[in-house]
Amino acid sequence: MRLPRFHLPTLREGDGELTGDEAHHAASVLRLRIGARIELFDGRGGRAAATISHVRRGHVAVTIEGVAPSGPQPTPHVILAVAPPKGPRQQVLVEKCTELGAAAFQPLRTERSVVKGGDALQQHWQRWALEACRQCGRDHLPEVRAGAECAAVFDERRAGGFMLLADPSPDAAPPSAWVKDAFGAVEVLVLVGPEGGWTHEEREAAIRAGAAPASLSRQVLRVETAAIAATALLTGGFA
Amino acid sequence: MRLPRFHLPTLREGDGELTGDEAHHAASVLRLRIGARIELFDGRGGRAAATISHVRRGHVAVTIEGVAPSGPQPTPHVILAVAPPKGPRQQVLVEKCTELGAAAFQPLRTERSVVKGGDALQQHWQRWALEACRQCGRDHLPEVRAGAECAAVFDERRAGGFMLLADPSPDAAPPSAWVKDAFGAVEVLVLVGPEGGWTHEEREAAIRAGAAPASLSRQVLRVETAAIAATALLTGGFA
Repeated sequence: MRLPRFHLPTLREGDGELTGDEAHHAASVLRLRIGARIELFDGRGGRAAATISHVRRGHVAVTIEGVAPSGPQPTPHVILAVAPPKGPRQQVLVEKCTELGAAAFQPLRTERSVVKGGDALQQHWQRWALEACRQCGRDHLPEVRAGAECAAVFDERRAGGFMLLADPSPDAAPPSAWVKDAFGAVEVLVLVGPEGGWTHEEREAAIRAGAAPASLSRQVLRVETAAIAATALLTGGFA
Repeated sequence: MRLPRFHLPTLREGDGELTGDEAHHAASVLRLRIGARIELFDGRGGRAAATISHVRRGHVAVTIEGVAPSGPQPTPHVILAVAPPKGPRQQVLVEKCTELGAAAFQPLRTERSVVKGGDALQQHWQRWALEACRQCGRDHLPEVRAGAECAAVFDERRAGGFMLLADPSPDAAPPSAWVKDAFGAVEVLVLVGPEGGWTHEEREAAIRAGAAPASLSRQVLRVETAAIAATALLTGGFA
């Protein structure tokens, strides 16, 4: 039986405290009581065992018993730069890509974007990522970046990084052609445009900045499906 | 601009008619009128251009102008034998796996299944698959099979087929180890157990029947995420 998991940014042997959403989830949703065994993760790869020592409204005190050293996030780090889809499709995107190991989300503003992606979106995405980490046993919490213009993101590629432009056109290379190259990179920035597609200018600018047009499927995928498929393919090379 | 698409099982040059859900979608949801250009697909790989010639409640008459020959479904045919997750997660599973090219869905009954999967489930899944085909431009409608006991499905593997058991245990082979072999198969049957996992007996029975334990991710995936990741990986080898 897997223990319920909670996020606590600083893990040290001894006394600790869950607050906010984590305390609410422990005390009110799962109704855990004194003596309950739980697991804690710090969001940077660290994990600890703990026991609940006190519960009151909004605060849950814990005794932290064993802190396992944090490991580095596995490579390639998949950074999903995505024009957000509408409504509940955002949650599917963030939840599934977190389960599959995406390292970061970068909401994009593009010419044809319908969803603009301000602070509220960033907060929602961070919460969904955290919930997925709790659930799937992942100790690295993906970073959710502030929304940015796509042109600025195209130019951000790091040295040694790989940049893929999700591209439904029939002449884009299939996964079998690009996935092996990507496995060797430290970081893969995946650019996924809005439902209405990239404009011609955006596509050209991305390619000029070094993005490789990449097909993800024979079909035309929705935004969230493209992000999920790219993450599954790029994190599927683990040994 | 992509044309709106509708399913019509028999495509012949000349007059045709949309009925049921398809007529409703054309007339009441998209509010298409006489003269509107549409695309039709027969669900077996065939496609045609058409023009709406008449609209009345529940019936939309069309003139079919050009029927493109149907092609075979690409291989490997991915058959997803899945213990259905709860509620809206079923829709995410069927929609995403249809977009990514799954050939068939086989709802499974297992020891720890919560959702039993009767006729209503089969109908819902078929409708979601059809809606996804309309949307993503896919001309092959995935088959949705009637729910079956997992033991019966384990023994169903066809000659030349490949059977994978989605397995979160750390000693299961990663995608990089099994995906190439699977690309060469005509059919890949992917077995995905319920949230509570396979029982020891089910796991052993699947392996005895020839299933290879396969890891899909470093994390423990939800049922629908496992099905989506498997489909993305197995259909990602297209040339």
